[in-house]
Order: sequence, then C-alpha cells, then structure tokens
Amino acid sequence: MGETEIIIEPGKQDIVFKKTFDAPRDIVFRALTDPSLVPSYWGPRKYATIVDVMEPRVGGKWRFINRAEDGGEHAFRGVYHEVTPERIVQTTEYEGYPGEVALETARLEERDGRTYYTGISLASSVEARDAVVASGMESGARELYDRLDEVIQGLVSRS
Amino acid sequence: MGETEIIIEPGKQDIVFKKTFDAPRDIVFRALTDPSLVPSYWGPRKYATIVDVMEPRVGGKWRFINRAEDGGEHAFRGVYHEVTPERIVQTTEYEGYPGEVALETARLEERDGRTYYTGISLASSVEARDAVVASGMESGARELYDRLDEVIQGLVSRS
Repeated sequence: MGETEIIIEPGKQDIVFKKTFDAPRDIVFRALTDPSLVPSYWGPRKYATIVDVMEPRVGGKWRFINRAEDGGEHAFRGVYHEVTPERIVQTTEYEGYPGEVALETARLEERDGRTYYTGISLASSVEARDAVVASGMESGARELYDRLDEVIQGLVSRS
Repeated sequence: MGETEIIIEPGKQDIVFKKTFDAPRDIVFRALTDPSLVPSYWGPRKYATIVDVMEPRVGGKWRFINRAEDGGEHAFRGVYHEVTPERIVQTTEYEGYPGEVALETARLEERDGRTYYTGISLASSVEARDAVVASGMESGARELYDRLDEVIQGLVSRS
C-alpha cells in the first residue's frame, strides 16, 4: 500500500527504501524469505527471475538471475548475515561488477497490523552508490516493491 | 614493516587501513585465514583471543572472543562473503551492540615480493563509524597490525 519512499542524500553511501505493507510482519517476512515467492517480485517485470540458490539463514548463500526475453542474464549473489522477522542483513554483489559488495539491511516493524519496512543498501563508496542510482535503480526498486506488495496481499487474502 | 596508515575522513562511513608487509601475498593470506594464527594477533595484547568459529570460505561464519584478565569478554562475529588471496570480504558485528553490522574488505596486492594491504571497514552510518573511532579503535588497530606483522615475519623466517 502507498508509495515506496526512496531517500538518496548527496555525498552519502546508502540508499534508504521505506514502504508500508497492510499485512502482519510474519507474512511480509515469509514473502521475503520463501524461495518459491521470490520469482514473483524480485526485479523488474520485464525479466524472469530464477532463484539459483536461496538459504535464508546465518551464513546461507543466495544467487538470483534476471533473464531478459532475448536470453541476456544478470546474476546477483551474496550471503546472509542475519535472518529474523525483525531484521534481514545480507551482502549483495552484481556478478557483472565483481568486487563491489553492498551491505543490505531490511528492518520490519509491526504496528496495528501493518508492517513498516525500511531497507538500507550500503555501497562500498559514494561513487559506487551514485553509479547504482545512475543505472536507473529507482524505477526498478519501485517496481520490485509494488510487486512485493501484490505478493503480500495475495498471501493475506489466502490466510 | 612501517607504520599503519589509518584514514578517517569527516562525514564518511568508512575507516581505511593501509599497511605494507615485507612478505609475499600467500603468506599474508595464510596469516589472515589460518585459525591457529589468529590468537597471536587479533585484538590488543592485553586480551586473550579465543577463536570460537572460523570458516574462511563463502558463507562461512566466524566468531572471536576477546577475554580480559578479569574474565570480562567481548565477542565479535560475522560471515564471509568472499575469501581469495586478492580479497577477503566479511561482515562484522560486535555482540555488545547487536544490529550494527559493518562490511569489512581486505585487499592484498603483491609487488616486488611485498604485500600492500588495504582494509576498509564500512559502518552502517556516519554516527556508527564515529562511535567506533571514539571508542579508541585507532590504537587497538595499530596494535593488531603490528602483531599481524610479527606473525607474518615469523612465517617468513620459517618458510
């Protein structure tokens, strides 16, 4: 529900995403950690998403592939530092740009049956952060969070 | 050999450590990844260091305990994102301050038989970075890198 708020302050290394979901936290957490649900929201609609590896636990690995209609692929991978309903912390690396590792934190707070999500993506430098912004990340992220909202509402309607 | 250079720029989220070791890279890498060597350099000399867990591979976990003479303990833990002779990338969390996760990168470059080490510790915010600096990190880090240098010179003399 509602727009995704994206905060990009000049000279900083992070990008902050805020979204409110009209669902209890356990459902949002399930959407974020169930490998069978990830292809329904991870990445832009124009790509198919393949979950190559997803082990949502401390030290678990993940690797997702975005595949375009023309067969072109973009793969992303990382490891999980923490996976709890309150907080998911993981590393992320785009395989097309090896060595630029981001630290991503998702915080989930539940109030009055709604879940307040805060995502923080911390890049290795201001330049790396700004390159991600320049790549058109913003529209892709809005699409991802809208699709995640649809998956969550689907889970709510079946619960 | 030489001093440890520590770079802390105002308003940034990272701390950069530079050190030159008079040893080939494979020896520096061994010192950084061999659990039996870690107690000889990790942390200030006044603490004993216990390696509770150390699995230096992608997705592996680590947990080190600094124990003071009075029995007081400080524990740190994280996961490895990448472990190669060129680059070690890991997360770090002080258990006394849960939720503040740093991303640490060690880059190792060998030139003319020497290894040029660059460590980058990226905090979750400028405030978290400044709190680490205020805690006296700098003298502890210099002691750690001096001790690491001693361990490396010991390995060189036996190789």
